[in-house]
Amino acid sequence: MKTIEVCFSPTLYHLYSNPEKTVIIIDVLRATSSICAAFEAGAKKILPIASIEDAYKAKQDGYILAAERDGKILDFADFGNSPDSFTPERVKNKIIAYSTTNGTQAIKMVNNAKNILIGAFVNISVLTNYLTNYPESVIIVCSGWKNKFCLEDTLCAGAIADTLLKSKKYSTNCDSTFAAIDLWNIAKDNLYTYLEKASHRNRLKNIVNENVIKYCYTIDATNVLPHYKDGFIEKLI
Amino acid sequence: MKTIEVCFSPTLYHLYSNPEKTVIIIDVLRATSSICAAFEAGAKKILPIASIEDAYKAKQDGYILAAERDGKILDFADFGNSPDSFTPERVKNKIIAYSTTNGTQAIKMVNNAKNILIGAFVNISVLTNYLTNYPESVIIVCSGWKNKFCLEDTLCAGAIADTLLKSKKYSTNCDSTFAAIDLWNIAKDNLYTYLEKASHRNRLKNIVNENVIKYCYTIDATNVLPHYKDGFIEKLI
Repeated sequence: MKTIEVCFSPTLYHLYSNPEKTVIIIDVLRATSSICAAFEAGAKKILPIASIEDAYKAKQDGYILAAERDGKILDFADFGNSPDSFTPERVKNKIIAYSTTNGTQAIKMVNNAKNILIGAFVNISVLTNYLTNYPESVIIVCSGWKNKFCLEDTLCAGAIADTLLKSKKYSTNCDSTFAAIDLWNIAKDNLYTYLEKASHRNRLKNIVNENVIKYCYTIDATNVLPHYKDGFIEKLI
Repeated sequence: MKTIEVCFSPTLYHLYSNPEKTVIIIDVLRATSSICAAFEAGAKKILPIASIEDAYKAKQDGYILAAERDGKILDFADFGNSPDSFTPERVKNKIIAYSTTNGTQAIKMVNNAKNILIGAFVNISVLTNYLTNYPESVIIVCSGWKNKFCLEDTLCAGAIADTLLKSKKYSTNCDSTFAAIDLWNIAKDNLYTYLEKASHRNRLKNIVNENVIKYCYTIDATNVLPHYKDGFIEKLI
C-alpha cells in the first residue's frame, strides 16, 4: 500500500528523501497559495528562485519578478508574494520569476524527487483527487518559517493526509502525519480562528491585508494542480 | 516575561540554540525516563555517551555500562535502556556510563547551554515546579526517533509547556509549542491509548515489556530532577 509521511521542516527533508516518492510542497502563507492563484489567473510558467541575488539577476534578464523576504516586497521586484498580486492582467500567458522567504527555497531543495507537486488549502481537492489515483507513496513537506515548524502548513498537511488515509489507498506509520491529522481535526471547523495564534499569521498582521490571509485559508479556491519540473513550475491540472 | 520554545528534533536545535536559555531534554521512550529512574534508585552520576565506540571504551575503562541501539541491548553492555534495569542493587552510589539511540545523543549535542535539565513524564512536577521559580527562558528539545519528530516526546513537551504557561510566568509565540500543547490536551486523559499509534511504541512492542512503557508514561513516578553539567548527569533535586 502507498504510504504517507509528513516532513515538518525543509531541514529535516534528508531524513525522508526518496527519489521514488512524490513530494508535495506546502507554504500556505503564501508561496504555494500564490502559485495556485497565478495559474488560476492564467500564468504560463513560474521560475522559482531561492536567493535574492538570483531574483535580481532574473529581473535584469527581463523576467517579470514577484519577490519578498520576511513578508515584504523586495524593492526591485514588480510585485510581492500575495495571491491577489497575481492578476490576469499581470500574469496571463506569461513566465513569472518568483522568490520568497520559505516556499520557493523548499521547492528548489527537493529537486531530486521525480514528481513534485504544489499543495495548499486553495487546491486541496484537485491535489488529493490526483494523489488518490496516483501509484506512488507521498512525502508532504511543510516549508515552515525559516526552517522552523509552522502551524498553517502542518494543518494543510494534516488535511491532505486525512483525505488520503480515508481513501483507503494509503497507510501511515509516521508520527508527524498522526500529529498533523490530529491538529487538523482540532482546527478544521474554524480554521481562521484556530490560526489566530500562528506566529507567521501575527508576523504578517501589519503587512498583509486580512483578505489575503482568508484567501490562503480557503479550501478549493482554485482548481489547479501545479507541479515543478525541469526548473519551472507548470500547471499539471 | 520568560519564553517557551519547543524544538521537535535535535536536527533543528541550531535554529533555537541560545546559551542564555535553559534546555530541557526529553526522550520519554526511554532515555530520560530511565535517567530519572536511575537517580530514584540512588545512582551517583551518569556519563552520557553518544557513539557505540565510546560506549565500548567506557566499558573497557571499568564503567558499568547501560547501552542500546534500536531498542536492543548492546552485547558488551551490562544492561540496556529500560527504567527497570536501573535497580538499586545495580546503580546505588555508582557512576553509570549510558548510551542510547536518541536521548544521550541529544544530551551531548546541547552542551553549549549553561543549564541542561532532564525531563520526562516521570518527573514532570518536580521539573515544572523548579522552572516556574527559575529566571530563564526555556527550550524544550524532543529527542525524537533518529532525528524525526516523535509523538511521545512531543506530548511530554506539551505537558511541560502547558503547565508553565498556566503559571503565568511564561509566554510563547512558538508554533511548535502551540502544537505540542494542543496534542497534549487531546491525549492527556488517556495517554496510554493515544500513544498506541506512536511509531516508536510499535517499534518496541516485541522488544520491551509493557510495564516499561507504562512506567515511562506515568506522571510523577519519581521526584528527581537530573541535570547535565561538566560531562556528567547528576541529581539537581
